[in-house]
Amino acid sequence: MENPEISDSSPVTIKPAVATIASQSESVPLSLDLSHHLSIESRIRQKSLLKVASSYLVRDAELLSLAAGLPSPSLFPIEKISATVQVAKHESVRNGLWKCDGLLSDTHLHKEKDSSLKGQSDYDLSGALQYEQGTGAKQLLTFLKKHTEIVHRPQYRDWDCIMSGGNTHAMETVFRMLINPGDYVIVEEFVFPETAEGLRPLQAKMIGIEMDDEGMRSDSLRQLLEEWDETMRGGKRPGVLYVVPTGQNPTGATMSVQRRKDIYNICVTYDLIIIEDDPYYFLQMSDYVPGADPSVVKVPKSNDEFLSSLIPSILSLDTQGRVLRLDSFSKVAAPGLRCGWITGSDRFVERVLRHNEVGLQFPSGVSMAVLHSMLVEGWGQDGYIDWLVNLRAEYTNRRNALLRAMDKYLPREVCNWVVPSAGMFVWINVDYTKHPRRDNGIEAVETELFEAGIDKKVLILPGTWFKVNSVARNVFFRATFASVSAQDMTLATERFGEVLRESFGCV
Amino acid sequence: MENPEISDSSPVTIKPAVATIASQSESVPLSLDLSHHLSIESRIRQKSLLKVASSYLVRDAELLSLAAGLPSPSLFPIEKISATVQVAKHESVRNGLWKCDGLLSDTHLHKEKDSSLKGQSDYDLSGALQYEQGTGAKQLLTFLKKHTEIVHRPQYRDWDCIMSGGNTHAMETVFRMLINPGDYVIVEEFVFPETAEGLRPLQAKMIGIEMDDEGMRSDSLRQLLEEWDETMRGGKRPGVLYVVPTGQNPTGATMSVQRRKDIYNICVTYDLIIIEDDPYYFLQMSDYVPGADPSVVKVPKSNDEFLSSLIPSILSLDTQGRVLRLDSFSKVAAPGLRCGWITGSDRFVERVLRHNEVGLQFPSGVSMAVLHSMLVEGWGQDGYIDWLVNLRAEYTNRRNALLRAMDKYLPREVCNWVVPSAGMFVWINVDYTKHPRRDNGIEAVETELFEAGIDKKVLILPGTWFKVNSVARNVFFRATFASVSAQDMTLATERFGEVLRESFGCV
Repeated sequence: MENPEISDSSPVTIKPAVATIASQSESVPLSLDLSHHLSIESRIRQKSLLKVASSYLVRDAELLSLAAGLPSPSLFPIEKISATVQVAKHESVRNGLWKCDGLLSDTHLHKEKDSSLKGQSDYDLSGALQYEQGTGAKQLLTFLKKHTEIVHRPQYRDWDCIMSGGNTHAMETVFRMLINPGDYVIVEEFVFPETAEGLRPLQAKMIGIEMDDEGMRSDSLRQLLEEWDETMRGGKRPGVLYVVPTGQNPTGATMSVQRRKDIYNICVTYDLIIIEDDPYYFLQMSDYVPGADPSVVKVPKSNDEFLSSLIPSILSLDTQGRVLRLDSFSKVAAPGLRCGWITGSDRFVERVLRHNEVGLQFPSGVSMAVLHSMLVEGWGQDGYIDWLVNLRAEYTNRRNALLRAMDKYLPREVCNWVVPSAGMFVWINVDYTKHPRRDNGIEAVETELFEAGIDKKVLILPGTWFKVNSVARNVFFRATFASVSAQDMTLATERFGEVLRESFGCV
Repeated sequence: MENPEISDSSPVTIKPAVATIASQSESVPLSLDLSHHLSIESRIRQKSLLKVASSYLVRDAELLSLAAGLPSPSLFPIEKISATVQVAKHESVRNGLWKCDGLLSDTHLHKEKDSSLKGQSDYDLSGALQYEQGTGAKQLLTFLKKHTEIVHRPQYRDWDCIMSGGNTHAMETVFRMLINPGDYVIVEEFVFPETAEGLRPLQAKMIGIEMDDEGMRSDSLRQLLEEWDETMRGGKRPGVLYVVPTGQNPTGATMSVQRRKDIYNICVTYDLIIIEDDPYYFLQMSDYVPGADPSVVKVPKSNDEFLSSLIPSILSLDTQGRVLRLDSFSKVAAPGLRCGWITGSDRFVERVLRHNEVGLQFPSGVSMAVLHSMLVEGWGQDGYIDWLVNLRAEYTNRRNALLRAMDKYLPREVCNWVVPSAGMFVWINVDYTKHPRRDNGIEAVETELFEAGIDKKVLILPGTWFKVNSVARNVFFRATFASVSAQDMTLATERFGEVLRESFGCV
């Protein structure tokens, strides 16, 4: 047992003395102090001296300032920003069935420099265009924190949120907060290339844990940690586990509740911080019924039903402040906003704040203004959920179109796939042992199929491009239904089917 | 002499063989290969595998893709963005005198998802809301590169620009690109706190070079490098010099052309990379005439006259690709845009790109859409210069108001200041040797004055808050004219004058 504060037998429920005392009075515990996980870089960060200056202004409203070097909002050339934003119609998405097209209306939102003075907004354009706190605009952050509470109901008291520049930025930030050069980090055996490409320059050593249909295998994880030999490995046991639990990229796998609990408990036992990178969380889909009309998708009858249908996040299982959850607007609104948020214990969130202050500073104020207009002044919490219900139906429809094409065109005798219940990807498992040139090795078969695809004018990404470990277990391909039209998806799938048939020599 | 490729006698003009050959045919040389300055982190960065995937799509337009996991633009909830933007009137700013107020008109700019399809724009909202290259949107970057060429006329061929998330983000990026833990870095003896607060977590050791009215002293710099003793210092000679050459924060100092050349040549001799952080470059002001009507400001007669009146940047002196120049929209448009750009040799720019891909990714597409509307589709290159001429007049007016108040209320017998020719700050040099309690030390006198200011309801920042080295040379205060009204500035200055008189006991 690594951490003396944590008991092996009942890991999730044990708290340090202070949290136990607090929980008696307020029923929800405080987080553990897990600051021993902070990297050297993160520990050194100090509160900015300029924050001391602004604290004087906060304390004394009569103070005249020759201190703050903020440019004058009257000299910002942008006077007004308007946005036309879609609104999901409640009735249409709530009647239990969803039909694509025609279910949305538009609303027009405006921000002017003096909207606050006019009493029209608590976040006007002068504010959005000015320097902002490293937390991001509090008017938007308050909404996001409420949203996080509604969806994830964190199980400890001192959790907090801070805005990020999207999950790639958030990933770099939390990696730098937790990883020293030479540290081992646990990831899934297949990861989005940017994850590995971001970790390598930090001189982190990645260990990819074997995956099954539910993502990272908890038995493999436990075994690795149990058998960790510092001398043999040339380094201490990993303190960080990075995982995409829902609609994983590239495998499309979604962890079951039990798998999430198992992974979490192992991380408690061996004292690991979990980075839960979860951009596809709301792209959880209804079941795939082969042969059904793809434009008709089953939709939850109410927002409450939708929320209860979602698989619990790892954050929602966390009673210790051991999870850093990364949320992004990239998949649920638009990647160009470059805006997301990080949820975790306030100790960790404060360290992110210190980093933001000397790096990102804060997400674009124009992005935040558009999001604030849309979420706070337009949709509201319930309208945002309506939008997410609509979005889920759209992606379900797209997924179904790809799956129907795969059912029709791909030769089941040499490949198979699991219907993804979330995300944007289908992971195709190709049985290389049936390939006539299997003796050339897994990667040779994969390359042959990939290149034959290019010749047949279909681009589909080989599994080895996402592979963390050196040894390949089988041939895989990642297909996506995110942005291609149903017609192109069908034609591309037909072509890939031909590639497989011709290469494997099946009929 | 550190770098064998560089001659001591005529450092600026010496090029390696390849550049010399190239310059014979194309007259402008190529940069030196200075990649030995890259940090370990930066060297490790690799091109993203996903870029390989997109290269297939670029090569073959007929390829159908099941590869790219981009969300569908039809599912972005934002349909249209409009902005109302100020336009500087050419006639008014060009008649040689500028009067505040009433010289601007508005223009209305729009971006819709399909503006490109409609032939209305080469950068529409679908593009701005989608994932973008790590360079930033090329439609905006092309404008910025042209602007950089017009203003700075780089003296080597293979220079390039890449977009950043503003200069704080750019600073973190180039620091990480060039600095390994334990490295010494040269800075000015007074720096903006965020610079020091950003460098410390990277475990960089800062050396502050003494400043005079022109900023960093070149004689002090040369001496430091000449006399560098690795054993005594416990580290190798610094390879990075960070400087804010124009309207420095906090001192307001602007380097003369000669000072810039001297610093550059020293960096050539001792093989240092120069980080030129220059957000105040366009806030260079006309002369201060005590007693003149502050609302009447002398303005260049043409944009060409304006451009020739600007002091050359260090980038414009660079023939080797030794300068990384950081430009930002924060002072010339709005900080909330979180958008700027880095200029340097394409070798360094490529390393920034690799970092962007796994961090920032790119500046907010909404910010870029607004900037593209304003700069490319609205103002154009010339209209942007018009705006900058207007802005310079506005800040000159503000500076003059503060200087008039200082002339009137501050006791010259115990303090003095240099009229800043650029930026947002006036640096007040207070002669502590005349203070009755000077024996308590410089910092004690400074603290007494600061606290007396708070008591009198004026906040003005003490010099030690910006100090890099441990020993203070005198008492300083930084005053800013950026965003306070003329009335409040005057009252605040009057109060600070009282503080000085009472504390020093002068009449």
